[in-house]
Amino acid sequence: MNARRTDLTPARLPRGFADRGAAELAATREMTEAIRRTYELWGFEAIETPFFEYTDALGKFLPDQDRPNAGVFSLKDDDEQWLSLRYDLTAPLARFVAENFQRLPKPYRSYRFGPVFRNEKPGPGRFRQFLQFDADIVGAPSVSADAEMCMMMADALEAVGIRRGDYVVKVNNRKILDGVMEAIGLGGPENAGRRLIVLRAIDKLDRLGPEGVRALLGEGRKDESGDFTKGAGLDADAAVRVLDILKAKAADNLQTARRLFDEFPKPGAGQEGARELSAVATLIDQAGYGDRVELDPSVVRGLEYYTGPVFEAELTFKIEDEHGRPIQFGSVGGGGRYDGLVGRFMADDVPATGFSIGVSRLQAALRALKGADAAAALGPVVVLALDREHIGRSMAQAATLRAAGIAAEVYLGASGMKAQMKYADRRHSPCVVIQGSDEREKGEVTLKDLIEGAKAAAAISDRSEWTESRPAQVTVPEERLVEEVRAILSRHV
Amino acid sequence: MNARRTDLTPARLPRGFADRGAAELAATREMTEAIRRTYELWGFEAIETPFFEYTDALGKFLPDQDRPNAGVFSLKDDDEQWLSLRYDLTAPLARFVAENFQRLPKPYRSYRFGPVFRNEKPGPGRFRQFLQFDADIVGAPSVSADAEMCMMMADALEAVGIRRGDYVVKVNNRKILDGVMEAIGLGGPENAGRRLIVLRAIDKLDRLGPEGVRALLGEGRKDESGDFTKGAGLDADAAVRVLDILKAKAADNLQTARRLFDEFPKPGAGQEGARELSAVATLIDQAGYGDRVELDPSVVRGLEYYTGPVFEAELTFKIEDEHGRPIQFGSVGGGGRYDGLVGRFMADDVPATGFSIGVSRLQAALRALKGADAAAALGPVVVLALDREHIGRSMAQAATLRAAGIAAEVYLGASGMKAQMKYADRRHSPCVVIQGSDEREKGEVTLKDLIEGAKAAAAISDRSEWTESRPAQVTVPEERLVEEVRAILSRHV
Repeated sequence: MNARRTDLTPARLPRGFADRGAAELAATREMTEAIRRTYELWGFEAIETPFFEYTDALGKFLPDQDRPNAGVFSLKDDDEQWLSLRYDLTAPLARFVAENFQRLPKPYRSYRFGPVFRNEKPGPGRFRQFLQFDADIVGAPSVSADAEMCMMMADALEAVGIRRGDYVVKVNNRKILDGVMEAIGLGGPENAGRRLIVLRAIDKLDRLGPEGVRALLGEGRKDESGDFTKGAGLDADAAVRVLDILKAKAADNLQTARRLFDEFPKPGAGQEGARELSAVATLIDQAGYGDRVELDPSVVRGLEYYTGPVFEAELTFKIEDEHGRPIQFGSVGGGGRYDGLVGRFMADDVPATGFSIGVSRLQAALRALKGADAAAALGPVVVLALDREHIGRSMAQAATLRAAGIAAEVYLGASGMKAQMKYADRRHSPCVVIQGSDEREKGEVTLKDLIEGAKAAAAISDRSEWTESRPAQVTVPEERLVEEVRAILSRHV
Repeated sequence: MNARRTDLTPARLPRGFADRGAAELAATREMTEAIRRTYELWGFEAIETPFFEYTDALGKFLPDQDRPNAGVFSLKDDDEQWLSLRYDLTAPLARFVAENFQRLPKPYRSYRFGPVFRNEKPGPGRFRQFLQFDADIVGAPSVSADAEMCMMMADALEAVGIRRGDYVVKVNNRKILDGVMEAIGLGGPENAGRRLIVLRAIDKLDRLGPEGVRALLGEGRKDESGDFTKGAGLDADAAVRVLDILKAKAADNLQTARRLFDEFPKPGAGQEGARELSAVATLIDQAGYGDRVELDPSVVRGLEYYTGPVFEAELTFKIEDEHGRPIQFGSVGGGGRYDGLVGRFMADDVPATGFSIGVSRLQAALRALKGADAAAALGPVVVLALDREHIGRSMAQAATLRAAGIAAEVYLGASGMKAQMKYADRRHSPCVVIQGSDEREKGEVTLKDLIEGAKAAAAISDRSEWTESRPAQVTVPEERLVEEVRAILSRHV
C-alpha cells in the first residue's frame, strides 16, 4: 500500500455518458438478438461502418432542425481534415452505399446496430451516447419497400416481446404534409420557418388534442405552467383545413386512404401522397398486417430529409408508475423514405427507405412491461478458499463444474469464511462449495444451498435450532460434486 | 432523378477505418459469444463503459512507451474539459472501479468487449479503431488470480475453436525482468532508456534467436536488408547473464521455476518473481492446465504499468500462405498484474490483474485455420415479383415462410425475371419462389432450387435439353410452400 496520496485524479464519468451493468447488457443483448434474427428472416444483411466519418460526408442531416450543424463531436485529423463521430446510422450508410455502389446487390437490404453520439447538453435520460438499430432498403423506388419496412418493424416489436395490440406502426407521407402546406399557402422556401411551426403543432396532436393544436396553428397557446408558445399565425380557415386532414384517420386503412383522396381532389403533392398511402394500405392488407400497421396523417417525424412515406412505431400499453400515474412510452422508433441522401455522393438520386429503433427507449419499455418478473439472474457457484495451501484443489473443483457447463469461481480474496459467504450472497450465488481439512481428508465436499438457506434462516428464529438442523446443506463425496450442484440449481432455475 | 450534379461530396472512409460486412460480423459474433460464455462460466460479469472518458482519467498509460501521450483522439468539451476516446478497456475499468468501489463485490471479476481507438498513422492491417475483449480481477492480491487469468485465457481459446496444442499461454513476471536489470547494473531511473532497449531485445528472442538477441544486447545488429539497429551496449558478461535467464525455460513448469530460483540466489525483485512464478506453476499444475500454460522468462509485454506476472497467448499452429511460406500468427492476447492503475484515483493501491484478447487478430487466425471450409452462408429465399399488381400476395408468401423460421424476401426492384434471378444468385439465395399468372390462377407456386440448378446447368450443355428437363424445379400447391422450401433447404444445409 502507498502512503496516502494528495495528487489523486478524480474518478468520474464525463457528463452525459453512462456505465452499463451486467443485467442491462444482458437485456440489450437479448433484445438486439431478437431484432437481428427478425431482420435476417426478412433477408437483411449486417453491415458495420466505423464510428468516424469525414465531417463533410455526414453532411447537415442532424435531426434537430434548429441547429443543423451543431450537436456533432468533431476533431481535426493530422492531415487537417475534419472527422466527426456518427450521430446516426443513416448518414454513414449513405456514404457506404455510394462508395460500394457497383458491387452491392440492388435493392440492397441492410441492418446496422451500435452506438451513436450527439454532442448535446445532457439531461435526465438524455445521453450523449446511445444505441440505435437501423434497417434500410436502398435502390427500391416503390412504396412496396416502405410497406415492408412497416411490417418488419411490427415483426421486430413482437420478436422482442411486445404483444400484438400493445403497439402500432403508424404510416404517413411527407407529401401529404407538403400538400397541406400548399393548400394553406405555405409553399415555397420563404415559408420554411412557418412550415416548421405548423409541423411542430401537428406533432403535438397526441399530447394536446385538436384544440391545443388549433391554438398552436393560430395565435399560440398558454400551457398549464403559464408559459406561452407563439403559434403559426394561420387564419381560422387554414387551421380547420389542417385539422380536417389530421382527422382523416379512420378505423380502417383503406377508408383513411379514401378520405385523404377526398381531401386532395386536385393533382399535386397531397394527391400523390394519398395515392402512395393507398398503395401501402393495400399491401399491408394483402400481407395480413392491417391490424398492426395503420395510416395516420398526423405523423410528422422531424428529419428534413424525408421525401415520401414516414413511419413511427408507438407503444400503446399503459403502465402505472409508483404513484398510480399512467406512464406512456410513445415512440420507440421510426423512419421513412429519403431518396436524396445517397444522391449527395452520386450523380443520380438513389431511392432509399429505412427506420431506426431507439434501443434504450424500447428496453426501458420492456423492463416496465416485464416488471418484477425479471428477478436478478443467478450468479456463479462460489468455491470457498479456506486454506491458501490447497487453493489449487479448489481451482480444480471449479474447473470440473465449468466443464459441466456450470458457472463457477474460486473465492480469491484474503478473507475468512464469513466474508466469503457474504461475497457469495453479493454475487447472487446459488450455492457454495466448502472443503475444510476434515472433508479434504475424507475426499468430501459440503454444498450449501444459499437460496434455500436464506428461506430457512428467515423461518428459524432460534440460533441453536439453526446450528442443529443445518438447513439446505449436504456433504457428499467429491466425485459427486457436479451431480449434487445440478440438483441444487434445478431447484432454483 | 436529378440533373447531373457537380457539387458532389466524395464518398470515402477516413484513413485507418474500415467497414465490416455480414460474414465478418457473423464470425465476430460467434467468436465473442464463445468468449463471453467462457468468462461467464468463470464467474465474470459484463460491464460496459462509455467511449469517452475525461482525458486526465485515461492518464499516460498508452502501450507505446515512446510516445506516452500521443495516439489518443481528444477534443475539448463545451465546459473546456478535455475528453478522449478510450484507447483500451483497462484505463476505463480503473476509473469505473474507483468510482464505484464501495458497492462492488471484491474481488471484482468483470469482462468488457468493444472498439477502442488509437490516433496513429494507419498502415496495412493497422487500424485506428479495433476490437478488444478484456477480463480482469480487481481486489485480489494473490497470484491465484493471475493463474486463473492464464487458465481462463486457455479456455477462451479452446471455446472459439483453437485446439489444445495449437496454442500456449506463456507466463512471466515483471519482477524477473527487474531482477535481470538489477543484476546487470541497469536499476534506477537514470537507466530507464537502456532498460527499454534491453526489453526490446528480449522481446525479439522468438524472431531472432539467442544470437540475434545477444547482438542487440551488445553493440547492435545489422538485419538482412542491411539496416543497423543500435544495441544496448552491455558487456559480454551482462549479455550472457540476460541470455541465461531467458534460457531458464524448461520442458516442465516446476523445473523452470526451480531454475529461476537458482538464477536469483539473493533476496530481491528477481527472487520474488521466481517465488511468484513457482506458486503460479503449482496452481496451474493442480488445476490440470500444465499442458496449456507455461512459464517463459522471455515474455516482456510492452506496457509500463505491469507490476507482477505478465502473460501472453500465442498461437503455435503453422499454416502456409499461397506461396507455401509459413504464416505464424503469434500473440493474440496478453495482460498482467497492474497494481498501480486503480490507485491513481484512490488513496490506496488496489491490486488488479487482467488480460485482453485482440479480437481482429484472433479472428484472422481462425479464418486461416478453418480455411475454405467456411463456405459463404446461404442467403434468404427470394420471392420473385413478376407482377406489380400482385406484390401483396408475394409479400404474404414471404410472411408465411418467415413465420416458419425461413429467411425470405420479396424482390423489390423494378426489373424483369432475368434480373431478379441474377439478384437471387447474388444474394446466395438457396431457392426462388415464382408465381406467374397461370400459377396464380391455379393456386400454385413454382420453386427453383438455385444450388441444384447451378450444378445441373454445369452438367448440361445443350440448351433444348435444359428447357426440356427444367432441372431442380417443382410446381406445387401454394399451401405446400413451406414444406417444399424446407425440402430444398434440407438438401443444402
